[in-house]
Amino acid sequence: MKPNILVIAGHDPSGGAGIHADIEAIHSLGGFAATLITGLTVQNSQNVLGFELVSTDLLQRQADALLADMRFDAVKIGMTGSPDIIAFIARLLDRLPGVPVVLDPVLAAEAGGSLSGETVPTAMLRELMPRATLTTPNLPEAQKLAGTDTLDDCGARLLDAGCPAVLITGTHDDTPEVRNHLYTAEGVQHWAWPRLPGTYHGSGCTLASACAAHLGAGLPLPTALAQAQDYVHGALRHAWQAGQGQLIPDRLTTGQPHERG
Amino acid sequence: MKPNILVIAGHDPSGGAGIHADIEAIHSLGGFAATLITGLTVQNSQNVLGFELVSTDLLQRQADALLADMRFDAVKIGMTGSPDIIAFIARLLDRLPGVPVVLDPVLAAEAGGSLSGETVPTAMLRELMPRATLTTPNLPEAQKLAGTDTLDDCGARLLDAGCPAVLITGTHDDTPEVRNHLYTAEGVQHWAWPRLPGTYHGSGCTLASACAAHLGAGLPLPTALAQAQDYVHGALRHAWQAGQGQLIPDRLTTGQPHERG
Repeated sequence: MKPNILVIAGHDPSGGAGIHADIEAIHSLGGFAATLITGLTVQNSQNVLGFELVSTDLLQRQADALLADMRFDAVKIGMTGSPDIIAFIARLLDRLPGVPVVLDPVLAAEAGGSLSGETVPTAMLRELMPRATLTTPNLPEAQKLAGTDTLDDCGARLLDAGCPAVLITGTHDDTPEVRNHLYTAEGVQHWAWPRLPGTYHGSGCTLASACAAHLGAGLPLPTALAQAQDYVHGALRHAWQAGQGQLIPDRLTTGQPHERG
Repeated sequence: MKPNILVIAGHDPSGGAGIHADIEAIHSLGGFAATLITGLTVQNSQNVLGFELVSTDLLQRQADALLADMRFDAVKIGMTGSPDIIAFIARLLDRLPGVPVVLDPVLAAEAGGSLSGETVPTAMLRELMPRATLTTPNLPEAQKLAGTDTLDDCGARLLDAGCPAVLITGTHDDTPEVRNHLYTAEGVQHWAWPRLPGTYHGSGCTLASACAAHLGAGLPLPTALAQAQDYVHGALRHAWQAGQGQLIPDRLTTGQPHERG
């Protein structure tokens, strides 16, 4: 048996981000991904050019079919796209009591371009933060959600919104190290990684899905977080150029950074 | 660098078939998958309950974004869904001269239920067979496409339609062995595998994607076909029960059947 992970996220046809990243990361870490696609994007490794959201009616029929058939061990939420879809997700999470939920609050795709309208952050804060076990914003996303600037203030506001573990990632900075900060009721903890050259498509999706795969396998949160960051760092170290833009993390690598056989 | 495989197929939210199977198989075999989703299905491991097709306008915008950014080493086609989408695919293939194309002519999902209207087989025969390098129907699909009953007649008709290599799989039979027959201008060749107990979700998608991954990596057709079948047999041997219906092939296994570490 593998842990079943329910992924609710967007689709990136270029394969770098969205459910591709989720499926590859969960698959590589020994889990199994079922996916509800919130929106179909038009993008490649260079740009986000547009998107079409999926109707909540179709999403509801898909969710009903899945929940009638499968038990889920964790949920990963990525791009939501609209307040209506966020409301649908909140109702769905209420049908999965006790299941760990990782919320990657995607507010703009990493290749540039807005993937969500103006009211999404408010809906996300109210409906999803209190239902999440862990949220994994990068600092710009945390700032937009929290409506405040400093790291510590962002951490405090997202904890206040009801999410018990807030990991704010430092990938979008330009410091020599990437520092990821975890805020919980116990305080703050951080991890530092050497910043790799280049920019990466789908690194945030990969991290959140790795966390969900590990939580779904029953790992405690601190272990899941440490192993997931280690996995992502390995995937970034082995990234390659599939198109002409951002590098693609090699999610087939597992755990510790290592050379592929 | 990994071979880039362009997948054109349906989405199965339950993760057994469609682009999930394609992404997992291509990823496990060292390739990279970009995907154009032709249709969003409502299904689980027990039943296909419905589907909505994606507009050819959105597919066109996605294809344009991908082709402007990436070079493709092979194409895998699964569920097409409508004659309009088939016409779109035919025009897209004409923009990728010399790239090997694997056509898995999905006419009904393996869990039961029709995924295509009546005119799809005719359009597929006229537009896609002449553009394919390899087609991988199961016998019921071959019979529907060829409009004839016997294996040899089906092989001959699909060769006549312009596809130079026709692999008709025997998974949907109940003989002690699964026999897969390859028809080419040189004659017929077959492979036999012990039939495993149970039924499997997405085994056809897995086989076609494994063929595309190997052809994209530059393997000659006979080697690609032999290795792909070997890979699928390994994945089926390690299948597990994710939901309450069909078993899910473990596509993380690679190549020779082996016990997982």
